[in-house]
Amino acid sequence: MQQVTKLKKHNDPQLAEARRTQILNAAASCFMLRGYHGASMADISKAAGMSPGHIYNYFDSKESIIEALIARDREEMFDLFNRIEAQGGNLLESLVEAADEGVERKYTPEHSALQLEMLAEAARNPKIAQLLQESDQVARARMRQLLTNLRQQQGVDIEKNLDGAIEVIFAFFGGLLGRSVLHPALARATLLAVMRPTLRQLFLGNSLF
Amino acid sequence: MQQVTKLKKHNDPQLAEARRTQILNAAASCFMLRGYHGASMADISKAAGMSPGHIYNYFDSKESIIEALIARDREEMFDLFNRIEAQGGNLLESLVEAADEGVERKYTPEHSALQLEMLAEAARNPKIAQLLQESDQVARARMRQLLTNLRQQQGVDIEKNLDGAIEVIFAFFGGLLGRSVLHPALARATLLAVMRPTLRQLFLGNSLF
Repeated sequence: MQQVTKLKKHNDPQLAEARRTQILNAAASCFMLRGYHGASMADISKAAGMSPGHIYNYFDSKESIIEALIARDREEMFDLFNRIEAQGGNLLESLVEAADEGVERKYTPEHSALQLEMLAEAARNPKIAQLLQESDQVARARMRQLLTNLRQQQGVDIEKNLDGAIEVIFAFFGGLLGRSVLHPALARATLLAVMRPTLRQLFLGNSLF
Repeated sequence: MQQVTKLKKHNDPQLAEARRTQILNAAASCFMLRGYHGASMADISKAAGMSPGHIYNYFDSKESIIEALIARDREEMFDLFNRIEAQGGNLLESLVEAADEGVERKYTPEHSALQLEMLAEAARNPKIAQLLQESDQVARARMRQLLTNLRQQQGVDIEKNLDGAIEVIFAFFGGLLGRSVLHPALARATLLAVMRPTLRQLFLGNSLF
């Protein structure tokens, strides 16, 4: 809300959006390099090549920056879901295919570093934990909607173990963050050969339980 | 190796082991609270209620402390596996039951906080990454051995997608660390209802693929 108000100050919305992206990317680098706690607004301003005063025109605090980074990550997932629903056709097959894209997205050291830092910080910082929990709740609801449509299309029991399946799916994809750190040499094909049929059963629910 | 040598200096092995545990617990608290990078040997010494010189009798550096913490975590998993194999009987059923214990172990904020901090630190600290990767390799080999025994007992194809199954299982359990932060209110039964049959298929491999 605050950010929307602030954006109104800027005459050129495209330029304002570009500046916001510039700040978010700089902040992401700083958080990865020094940790959230260790990175100051001064560090972020230096990395972004903008004056601290200029940054405060866009974001009030580190907290509002991390809030925007969390939202950006969630929007990436939602963009994928929206594309899948918009293209029509077999949702099950589209979603299984899209999961490969999810692996590519999670299995990059840069992406993992920022996400793991956020989770580690959340474990000691209740405000960050709250932001992530709120975002996760929105993500679970969106996933619930998508799987409801999918199960309806497949004519299987919609509610059966739906929340449990979402939890296992989210645990698995979240776990890939750690795997990219712990087992970077893993052949993607080895993972996908097991991941695809496992997800297929989790999406459908019916054949598994 | 260094630690074993150091232990030889101590006359009372039981007391030495108790001191080591005291230091490791204090270090774990410090790493959770301030992050690995932010916690100094002085902080750890203060938290352990021991002089820095005394601590250096047991551990050369923060790095050797985190190495011991990583080993301790791995040993907990191996203890569970050893118990399962020693008790005999149906390995599949024992392992599915043991997974519930794994959930309890992963789904505690304290355990998650330390593990997530280690992973976040590994993403920016190659030495920590190397320690975790070496430990993960040992853990994968142990899991491979256990699942080989299980599949042999069940008379199913042992090698089929074995490494992929281990990767998905490890991703899932690693992902529970994040879930305990992101969705702490989750009813355990909701998760277990889907986790158990999913794991059963991953352990066996044959019926899924």
